[in-house]
Amino acid sequence: MSLLADTVAAIRPLDAAAMAAAQARHATLTKPPGSLGSLEDLGVRLAGLAGTCPPPLPQPATVAVFAGDHGVHAQAVSPWPQEVTAQMVLNFLAGGAVVNAFARQAGAEVVVVDVGVATPLPDGDAAPGSAGPRLVRANIRRGTADLSVQPALTRDEAAAAVEVGIRLAGDLVDGGAGCLITGDMGIGNTTPAAALIAAFTGAAAADVTGRGTGIDDETHGRKVAVVQRALGLHRPDPADPIGVLATVGGLEHAALAGFVLGAAARRVPVILDGVIADSAALAAAALAPDAVGAMVAGHRSAEPGASVALRHLGLAPLVDLGLRLGEGTGAVLAWPIVASAVRVLHDVATFDSAGVAEK
Amino acid sequence: MSLLADTVAAIRPLDAAAMAAAQARHATLTKPPGSLGSLEDLGVRLAGLAGTCPPPLPQPATVAVFAGDHGVHAQAVSPWPQEVTAQMVLNFLAGGAVVNAFARQAGAEVVVVDVGVATPLPDGDAAPGSAGPRLVRANIRRGTADLSVQPALTRDEAAAAVEVGIRLAGDLVDGGAGCLITGDMGIGNTTPAAALIAAFTGAAAADVTGRGTGIDDETHGRKVAVVQRALGLHRPDPADPIGVLATVGGLEHAALAGFVLGAAARRVPVILDGVIADSAALAAAALAPDAVGAMVAGHRSAEPGASVALRHLGLAPLVDLGLRLGEGTGAVLAWPIVASAVRVLHDVATFDSAGVAEK
Repeated sequence: MSLLADTVAAIRPLDAAAMAAAQARHATLTKPPGSLGSLEDLGVRLAGLAGTCPPPLPQPATVAVFAGDHGVHAQAVSPWPQEVTAQMVLNFLAGGAVVNAFARQAGAEVVVVDVGVATPLPDGDAAPGSAGPRLVRANIRRGTADLSVQPALTRDEAAAAVEVGIRLAGDLVDGGAGCLITGDMGIGNTTPAAALIAAFTGAAAADVTGRGTGIDDETHGRKVAVVQRALGLHRPDPADPIGVLATVGGLEHAALAGFVLGAAARRVPVILDGVIADSAALAAAALAPDAVGAMVAGHRSAEPGASVALRHLGLAPLVDLGLRLGEGTGAVLAWPIVASAVRVLHDVATFDSAGVAEK
Repeated sequence: MSLLADTVAAIRPLDAAAMAAAQARHATLTKPPGSLGSLEDLGVRLAGLAGTCPPPLPQPATVAVFAGDHGVHAQAVSPWPQEVTAQMVLNFLAGGAVVNAFARQAGAEVVVVDVGVATPLPDGDAAPGSAGPRLVRANIRRGTADLSVQPALTRDEAAAAVEVGIRLAGDLVDGGAGCLITGDMGIGNTTPAAALIAAFTGAAAADVTGRGTGIDDETHGRKVAVVQRALGLHRPDPADPIGVLATVGGLEHAALAGFVLGAAARRVPVILDGVIADSAALAAAALAPDAVGAMVAGHRSAEPGASVALRHLGLAPLVDLGLRLGEGTGAVLAWPIVASAVRVLHDVATFDSAGVAEK
């Protein structure tokens, strides 16, 4: 069997007994029942994922920033030059981007993955002598084709990109990561994200296509039309997720889908960042519905497609601050909240042990 | 002059030049303009508070849990016995409460302040030999009087409690704290919080009185009636904030108002937890309107009065997860987000320095 098939086969439902144990434990802790709101549900779900209560603390955490370019950039769907993708990869490696700052604050590791950057990256250590992020060189193809005129990728390329993500998730968990965080970089990548979300949820292009990094009305109109055209051209079938990723996706989207599957197969939580991760999560869920159990929605991106995708997945975001940067920034902000939800099940005294009267 | 008058006099508006510098700096950083949503505004505001750009990182942080009891408990507004306040103080000191778990996860210090607990606390070190939280003994009075039949406190007691908070804020800043976090404990304390919010905002008792730690319809109806009765009896005048705190407040509410004022006078951010802190913040803002510049709304408590208070203060909460525990828990969750907002202004490369093209 392929790595992808093996991984999908390894993904199992949440453990009901561990969830029941977490629920019961919550009721004994020194706090009014239910007073931690959605953090209680999150703790219960992560117990189900780990298959034990309390679940392990979700740490250390690594944010993997998957970078790729997009042929659809030729349709002028973004005001940024395509070279910015590679320039930002170097910025990540030098520790100068927002995701680096947030990760430094939170104590998370950053790994950068070239899965499809168009511009060749310099050889050797991109940030020589620094203790900066590691670069994983796994370029499947130097950017996708223009999905509005032909398939973005071949099926083989899409499957290979998915396996890049699976492999990295496994390597990180083998290296001790207790939580995986999704990140992305790719000028133009909200266009394939919108197409993926429309394909997997059935939503209209106009309802899932946003302003990305900030575009004017004219560009936005063009972007909606491009997504519509791609959907009409390829008629992607949600029952064939690899086909959807190949025709209207992107290399970082496919790799992120694999990263999510890899986390789910290893029963480690994966925090989704914004609209790119959400679109990839739909592909992962189409491949393995039980993968949703491993997903934590880090934040609600300002992109409209993000909310459509999260609703489809049945996930409520932890942070909602109008972020629309990507890179993993919103998910890194959510990580301490996830850890706190789990820590309650480890550290908090019971009414009994603390000698606190109940109501 | 009194400590209170000195403190109020020291509170000044945000520094417009530092805010303009932060705004200008944001525009040069390697991210699309505005892509960090409300975190950009927060960074700008904290630059204005510090009077410099970038503002200092808001760390280390200390959460001060002010504990007090309430005569109105006699009206059966809470299903919990009053002794739970003191029992939870001991739980905090032993490190066993949720706020301890969250603070441990975030790396924040916890200090517990007995400003009005009814039950005498044991002498000596409450958690001998442990590295647990410090207890500040500053009991002004062993619980308030029943605000539904008489003033909760005398004016002198209210002012003394405010000064407990001011003094602690100053001590913590002198000790190196770069961020203060509000916490509270007091069985029955959402009733005076509702009365304070009604008094300062003009809202109706029914619109600001919630279910606290979880009460049934009958208890909730009684609680609304108690708040109404108190407001009718004392007719608190929002132009006399100490009078409002004395008649319908509580010792921890008054101390928290002082804690906020102390932070503002020292130009250090103070993260508000839930409805108790929000009600105290209204008192602080009534005493010194510019104190709002130092306030960060940590989260939106599930209590309806919290949203009314935050709207009145013009503050948008960072976290909104349905928490209704108090203790400082929601504010501690928000602290890493506040630090991240500031860290962007320190760490992120500019387009120029990173060699990234602009759109």
